[in-house]
This record gives sequence, structure tokens and C-alpha cells, in this order.
Amino acid sequence: MKFEIAADMEYGVTGKGTIILNIHALRSPNQAVLFETFSVEPYVRTEELTSAHGENRFIRLDIPKKADLRISYKATVDTSHKITDHRKQKPVPVARLEPSVFPYLYPSRYCQSDKLYRLANNKFGHIRNPYVQVVKLTEWIHRNVEYLSGSTNSQTSAYDTVTEQAGVCRDFAHLGIALCRALSIPARYFTGYSYKLVPQDFHACFEAYLGGDWVLFDATKLAPLNGMVKIATGRDAADTAIANIFGNITGGYIQVSCNAIDGFVPHNYIPSEMKGVSYL
Amino acid sequence: MKFEIAADMEYGVTGKGTIILNIHALRSPNQAVLFETFSVEPYVRTEELTSAHGENRFIRLDIPKKADLRISYKATVDTSHKITDHRKQKPVPVARLEPSVFPYLYPSRYCQSDKLYRLANNKFGHIRNPYVQVVKLTEWIHRNVEYLSGSTNSQTSAYDTVTEQAGVCRDFAHLGIALCRALSIPARYFTGYSYKLVPQDFHACFEAYLGGDWVLFDATKLAPLNGMVKIATGRDAADTAIANIFGNITGGYIQVSCNAIDGFVPHNYIPSEMKGVSYL
Amino acid sequence: MKFEIAADMEYGVTGKGTIILNIHALRSPNQAVLFETFSVEPYVRTEELTSAHGENRFIRLDIPKKADLRISYKATVDTSHKITDHRKQKPVPVARLEPSVFPYLYPSRYCQSDKLYRLANNKFGHIRNPYVQVVKLTEWIHRNVEYLSGSTNSQTSAYDTVTEQAGVCRDFAHLGIALCRALSIPARYFTGYSYKLVPQDFHACFEAYLGGDWVLFDATKLAPLNGMVKIATGRDAADTAIANIFGNITGGYIQVSCNAIDGFVPHNYIPSEMKGVSYL
Amino acid sequence: MKFEIAADMEYGVTGKGTIILNIHALRSPNQAVLFETFSVEPYVRTEELTSAHGENRFIRLDIPKKADLRISYKATVDTSHKITDHRKQKPVPVARLEPSVFPYLYPSRYCQSDKLYRLANNKFGHIRNPYVQVVKLTEWIHRNVEYLSGSTNSQTSAYDTVTEQAGVCRDFAHLGIALCRALSIPARYFTGYSYKLVPQDFHACFEAYLGGDWVLFDATKLAPLNGMVKIATGRDAADTAIANIFGNITGGYIQVSCNAIDGFVPHNYIPSEMKGVSYL
Repeated sequence: MKFEIAADMEYGVTGKGTIILNIHALRSPNQAVLFETFSVEPYVRTEELTSAHGENRFIRLDIPKKADLRISYKATVDTSHKITDHRKQKPVPVARLEPSVFPYLYPSRYCQSDKLYRLANNKFGHIRNPYVQVVKLTEWIHRNVEYLSGSTNSQTSAYDTVTEQAGVCRDFAHLGIALCRALSIPARYFTGYSYKLVPQDFHACFEAYLGGDWVLFDATKLAPLNGMVKIATGRDAADTAIANIFGNITGGYIQVSCNAIDGFVPHNYIPSEMKGVSYL
Repeated sequence: MKFEIAADMEYGVTGKGTIILNIHALRSPNQAVLFETFSVEPYVRTEELTSAHGENRFIRLDIPKKADLRISYKATVDTSHKITDHRKQKPVPVARLEPSVFPYLYPSRYCQSDKLYRLANNKFGHIRNPYVQVVKLTEWIHRNVEYLSGSTNSQTSAYDTVTEQAGVCRDFAHLGIALCRALSIPARYFTGYSYKLVPQDFHACFEAYLGGDWVLFDATKLAPLNGMVKIATGRDAADTAIANIFGNITGGYIQVSCNAIDGFVPHNYIPSEMKGVSYL
Repeated sequence: MKFEIAADMEYGVTGKGTIILNIHALRSPNQAVLFETFSVEPYVRTEELTSAHGENRFIRLDIPKKADLRISYKATVDTSHKITDHRKQKPVPVARLEPSVFPYLYPSRYCQSDKLYRLANNKFGHIRNPYVQVVKLTEWIHRNVEYLSGSTNSQTSAYDTVTEQAGVCRDFAHLGIALCRALSIPARYFTGYSYKLVPQDFHACFEAYLGGDWVLFDATKLAPLNGMVKIATGRDAADTAIANIFGNITGGYIQVSCNAIDGFVPHNYIPSEMKGVSYL
Repeated sequence: MKFEIAADMEYGVTGKGTIILNIHALRSPNQAVLFETFSVEPYVRTEELTSAHGENRFIRLDIPKKADLRISYKATVDTSHKITDHRKQKPVPVARLEPSVFPYLYPSRYCQSDKLYRLANNKFGHIRNPYVQVVKLTEWIHRNVEYLSGSTNSQTSAYDTVTEQAGVCRDFAHLGIALCRALSIPARYFTGYSYKLVPQDFHACFEAYLGGDWVLFDATKLAPLNGMVKIATGRDAADTAIANIFGNITGGYIQVSCNAIDGFVPHNYIPSEMKGVSYL
């Protein structure tokens, strides 16, 4: 699938400061960046950095003095994803998991799976097929949590959302991740561009590790699962912030878009079918 | 009903300090204290105090110096309770509630009903009869929260228990109160002695304000509703602590008992029936 | 001192609902309400209620259907306060306190004095004179906490403010109360109108129980201590909310003013002097 | 320096389960494991795993059925550390930091540096030399936080410890890390064996990234800085748990020791001197 993505952002900087942006489409075997342009006005020194383990592409802006920054990113990306059948999915005991996924099995800042252990197991522990467990918990979140802009903030965690039952995509994702981990299913946070998302913004959802694939789930159901362009994955939003800011800097205007170039047929999982979508 | 109640407690005091105990059976029109004896060894100055609004009887111990205190309380109490039919119970809008119950309608330290508003209304908001609402939420707590000694501490609140799903009587009561208030039903904390409670200890449950009565509910189901001797009621455990301690004092041994003198027929609510038990 | 106070508020009501307002000047031996007018447009049924223990005057609005409410309150109030010398103030052990002040000695929803015990005693425990303790902790709050509109919300407590070090008058008051209680000094929340407050709004500060008086302290230093008109006192903001709202109601415009009629000489405590201001 | 380290642990396993241990001395250019033996009785399948980025050595125990496990680890380790002079240390702006240290600059589960930003900068922001900043904050923690076994639990974070002012080595380390990050100094959690630690246990402290070295600090001052054998480093205790447990397993007896073979001269930093100890 080919997508045209764009992000335009503005920041008011009152003095010396640094912004680390994480808005570039990830380059991976299954996500080719065909065209890409990034600009900042007025000029500031920028560097592209790659995280130690290659999950992210950072842009660091070194801002020497007061400025009103206008940042513009555009890219054309060719993504492919895999659809797998999970009807025969068996639970994978921790004793058989690859160590590389352990970081996604443990509690993290916004996904306190240890505190949700009983709740997750009381609700979903009896289900044998782990894919079905994740579908059921995703449906449960969708049914019980209201999507409500401005209802949460940067401190809100899965522990809050499970009770307060309102939030934005970030909160839906954190709760999904925490419930998966509480069921001993590794899960991670996914940020990206999402096809014709309304309201337009960056999107967040989560991936569960099932049968060796990172299978995508979106409890908001605001976006088709095959309409994502990946920016980064991490343990939760603390790993994958769109912008990390140092100094006296205030964000303002933001405009994000993601459109398909060629014909696009939105696909979402059908709970009854057992097909998972994963980006490699 | 006549009950013989007893509490024996020990405290290690390393220096000057004060203990405010709240273990005496309340004296009320429907709870007559027929016989009562209280002793502290070695001797320390004690005062009986009554709270501003008569819901509690405090004993203040003024401890001048290092001591190992042995406290003993015994009483014979004649209680009566009322059984009311709630089949025709209608919701009482806040616009019709007596102001005297407002304190039991608002969030308190351990019962953050404001944070449970969506959860309570999603689960129980559709039920018309408020008595049935409280029965259903009590059953829900009993089904979902495991009684587990030592699983919680003095900081644990309803906001924790709703997710962590384990606790002791205090936690069951706080969650019941928080859910009631989130449904605009006034609710308060009840501490007392409970007939043949296992494990033996002071007991806590909650009262919901229904049809002008404070109807008793116990989500632990550890005690018959007609086997209680009331010590105090309050907004939550912060109002009705068994002991408030000032100075370097450590609690130790505690022994509590509550037995019926005359024949006693345990009674618990039958969800299908619509009968409520209240202590006047 | 004579003050003219006024509050104008607007609420958007989408259906049946109830508002309980707590904006009327308290009537007390030392605060005479000389003139008072309250109006709501369009007409809705209103009742004046007094809390069980007379600390508050509530107005309950019973709103039958969709409406845009305009509420207007005006009053002329004659207040008097007492200035007392605390140079010889001695600590009052809990063993000597009147039971009527116990509710103000224990932790409450927003004032978790139990969690601040060590911090309060490490910083202020060595000071002998309790009036000086409260002055020092008030100065400490003023020095360390930044007044920042919009930095906190209705969930923010003293436990947050002591670390996050930003807040509004409500947060300054909660922290002051929590520190006092952690030092075994009873303290309570005070809401009222405040002389020429900037930004104009209702004000909150706190009273510490010293030598039998409720002595006023304001860590924001935004208002003269002798320029207050009391609305209510309580354990914290949970007891004394300006408005408690039931139903689908959104607050909007609010305008508050407090001006002196006769000549007014602002007075604030001078840390070096040992004079306390209290409203009886 | 040569050390003999040992850990003996017992676990009661009631059924199928998995334990992931992180108790092996790290192998690194400056920490040579000369001799090592690990045993589990009764026999269970064990695997040694290395984390994706080589900071940890895990042992995974795959326990098929009920058992009382006795785990024994012994090693002889030769460590070397570097002592560096920080008198001329300059702050390194985020704009100049290597991206590999970013994970240690951001908030994490137990080190919510974003919430401690104002506190850290109010107390230590004025200090120019970052080494001195870390020394001062370490001294501040040591002065204000009481080492009290059992005062905290696995949920306790830096946000709690900064106010509650009591904890164990884990809590001292989390607070140190959070304060460093709030000052834009990368910091990470260090677990290891510590020379003749009393009470005997595994130890935790923290490393701050200064002048290209990870400089060691221990706010508990229970252990000499040159007497550590490193097990692992991570963002906080969530990354470096001694044991991660899956299944119905209860820990019990634990015995840890660390002794020097050749003559050992304990060294701690002298605040006045500006010398830092780092393990490469």
C-alpha cells in the first residue's frame, strides 16, 4: 500500500532549547520510504539519530535562541502487512518466549500490568486461544471506554483508564497493553500515521505478540488496521513520545494527514474470523 | 437481640503519647448497652468523649510514659433492627434529599466516587430500583473482589480495590460506598462487632440511604446482617478508625468476640427478595 | 469591616439536574449579612439549606429541563476579626484537645497528613511555638510552590503539590492543612470572598487551631488576611465545593468581586511579629 | 579487586511456573568472572539468556510441577573501576548527548522525573557543575530519607519517596535517578552485590552520566563505592528485577554475601573532593 503522509507543527521557543522529534516513518523491510522531505524554519541545526535498537528515527533540533519554529514533514511510504490465521493459536508459556520480547512482558510506566493481574485473569483468563483473548479484551475496552478528547493528560495510565473509562487513543492502547501483559502476552505501543483518521492527529494503538508475529489491535476502532504507517514501537508512550522537549518551549498548531495513493480497501479484524494484521 | 461483645488489645508505648479508641458500642434508641466495662492496665488517665454529632463514642488515653498497655472492653448490648420491603423503591433525586445526608453523597478520602462515576453508571445505571442497584453492586463486589488478609494497607482506597480486586472488609465497604455515591445514593461506612466473625476481628460494612433508612450491606458476606453491634458510622474509615495513635506506639495482640445470648437466627438478604435490614 | 460582595455565574443545563451552590456569606456572630440578594434566571425552584453543623449555607437549584442559567448573588457584609498575640503559644498535646476539633486533625481526601508526617516533622518539628510552626510552613509553601492557573485539577491533592510545586489557592491551602495536621495542629479549609483578589475568583486559604482560635493563614499571599468574607469552612475542598453538580451541566462564565465600603487598611501577618488574625 | 559472591534462595512452587532470575555477575571488559557455579535442586530445565542489549544475564527456570526449589549461585569476580576528576565538569546540553543515553533521560515507571522537575530545579538547578549537582542531591536524599526495612513495597516510586521520606536501597536509587533526569542528567539503576552489606541482601544504587562515564552514587551510604559487583543496569527496578515470577510461586529464604579476597580499602566519595567512581 502506498500512502502520502504529512505533519506540520509549530513551536514557540523563548530561549535556548532542544526538541527531539519522533515523527519520521520508520524504515523497515516492509515499510519503504519512497520519498521524504523535512524542513524547519527558521533554520536550526538538525540531526537524524537512530535509537540503539533501531525502533525509532529521531530528529534532534538544537535551538540556539528565541524562535517561532515551523516544522514540516512529508513522505511517500510503501507499506506491506501480513494477514495470519490464528484459529489454531496456542498459549506460549513464558518458559518458551524469546528473551527479546521480555521488555514487552513486564509492567512499564503507563502499563502497570502487575496491578491489573486479577482483573485481566478474572475476565479473560479462561479463554484458551491467546488471539481470542486479545480480541475480547480489545472489544471490552472499545465497549467500556469512551473516546473523549481532553479527558486525560500525560500522567494518565492504564490503571486510571480501566476505572475512569474515558480517554484518547494513547489511553486505549495503554490499557490494551497492560491487559495483554497481565495475561502473559507480550504487548507493545505503536505510534504512526493512520489513514484518514478523524480527528486528524498522530495515532496510537498496540501490538500483541502472537505466534511469532506482532499483531496489531486498535481498541478505538477509529482506523483500519491496514491503513497505518509506523513511526515507532516501544513499551509505552514514554518510549515513543512524538516530541521530547527541553527548555522553555510550547507546542501549538499541529496538522497531520495520511492518504492512500492507489485504491485502498479498509480492513478491520472481524472478531468472528481469526485473522490478524501485522506489520513486519 | 442480645449480644455479648468483647475486645482485648495490647499496645507497646515507648514514651509520652495519646490513643483515641473507638471500640465502644454506640448508644442509640435501638441499641441499648445493658452492661459495659472498660479497663486499662497499668492505669492511665482516660476520658470518654462523644463526637460533635453523636455518631461515635471515643475513649482518649493520655499516656505519660513508657508502658505496655492492656486494654479490655466488655459489654452486653440489646440491638434491634428493622426489615423493610424495597420492592416499590423509587430513585430519590438529589433535589429531594435531606441536606443532612449530603456528606455521604460526596467523594471522601477512601471513596472517590467521582472517579468511579462512569464505571458505576455503565454497570448499574440502567437499573431503576435503587435497592436493586445496591444489591447488584454488592453482589458484583462479592464476585470480583477476593477476601485476602494482608493484601491491602491503610492507604488502599476504593480506586485501588476496583482494579486490584483483593482486600479485606474495609476495602469491600469502601468500594460499595464509592459505587453507591457514584449512582447518587448516599452511603456511609459502618464499623462494629459482628456475630461469630471468622477471622475474629472488628468488622466493617456499609449502609446505603434508601427510602429514608440506612440499609445495611456487606459485600464480604462474612457476617449475618442481623448480627451486628454498631460502634460508629462515618464517611469512610478515615472517620471511624478503631484507634487513632499519636506518639511512638505500636499495636500488637488483638482479640475480638461477639456472641448471641439468646437464640439467634442469622439473616442475610436474599437478592431475589427485596428486604433490607437497617439499624436505627 | 463592611464589604460589598458579588458573584455572577452561568451554567448550561442540557436536561433535568441539580446544582448545590455554596456561595452565600456565612451568617455568624462576627459576620453580619446586612443586605443580601440572590436571583436565578430563568426561574427554577431554589431552597436554602443549612448543613447539619451550621458551617455552610447551601442553595439547591432544582432544574426541571434544558436551560441556560444566570445566577446572581450580591451582599453587604459586616465582618470583624480578632488579632491575638501568639508569642507565648505552647503546643497543645492531643490529650488536651477538644474532641470537636478532631475531624480537623485527621487526614482527609485532599490533605493526606499521614503521608506527609516525616516531611513535616523533619522540616518544622523542632520549632517549639506552634504559631511559629504554621508561619514557617506557610512561608515555605509560598517560597516553593508557584501560583500557576490551570496547573492542577479537581483531583490534585497536598500529596501532589508538595512535589509538583505548582498550583492555585486551593492547592496552597490543602498543603498548609496537611502540614499542620502532620504536626498535630488541627487545621481546616476556608473558602470565601477576598478583597480585590487578582485574578478575581472565589478564594481559599486555611485556618490553624491555635490557643483556642482558628487563626487564618494564606500561603498564596494574594489577599490581606483581614479582607476575607467567609463562605464556609471544612476539612478540605471536598466539604466546601462552591458548586456540587448532578446531571449534565457545564459551568461557564464566572465573575466574583469583593470591595470594602469604608476605608480599609490591608493587614497581613508579619512573620517577625507574632500576631494572628482569626474570624470568630 | 577480587570478590567472592554468593546467593542462596528458596522458592515454594505449587504448580507449573517460570522464574527468570537476574543474579549472575555481569561479564564486561572490566568485570571478569573468574569462577562461577549455579545449581538448582531438584533439577529443573534452566537456560541462560542475554538481554537484547547485553546489560543483563538472565537464567530462566522452567518448573514443570510442584517443588521446593533451592537455588545456589557462587562466583569469584575481578572488577576494576575508574576514578575520575570532575572539578572541571561542564553541563552537557541535551543537544550534545549521544542518543544511546536518551532512555536514561526520560521518565520511567518508578522514576517520574517529569513530576519532580520543579523540585529538582528549585533545589539544585542553580549549581553549575553537574557532578556537584549529583553529589548534593545524593547528600540531600541521605539526609532526608530514612532507611527503614519494610516501609515500602514493589509499587513505591520516587514520587512517593520524595514525600514519605522512608525506604530501602531501591527507593533511594529511584529518587536519585528521578532527580538527575529532572536536571537533564541521564541516570540509571544499578543492581549488584555489595561488599559486606548490612543487612545482607542484594544492593541497588544509581549511576549518573557525567563526562562520558557512568558515575556511581549511593544515597544509602551503606556500601563503599568500590565494593560493588554489577549484576545489571536499567532504567529502574522494573528493568532489573532480581526475579520475575510467573505462576503460583512464593519466595522465602534468601542469603547473599560479598567478600573481598585480597586486601580491600573501602572508598566512598568525599563531597569536598570531586572524584567519581565508575564501573566500565
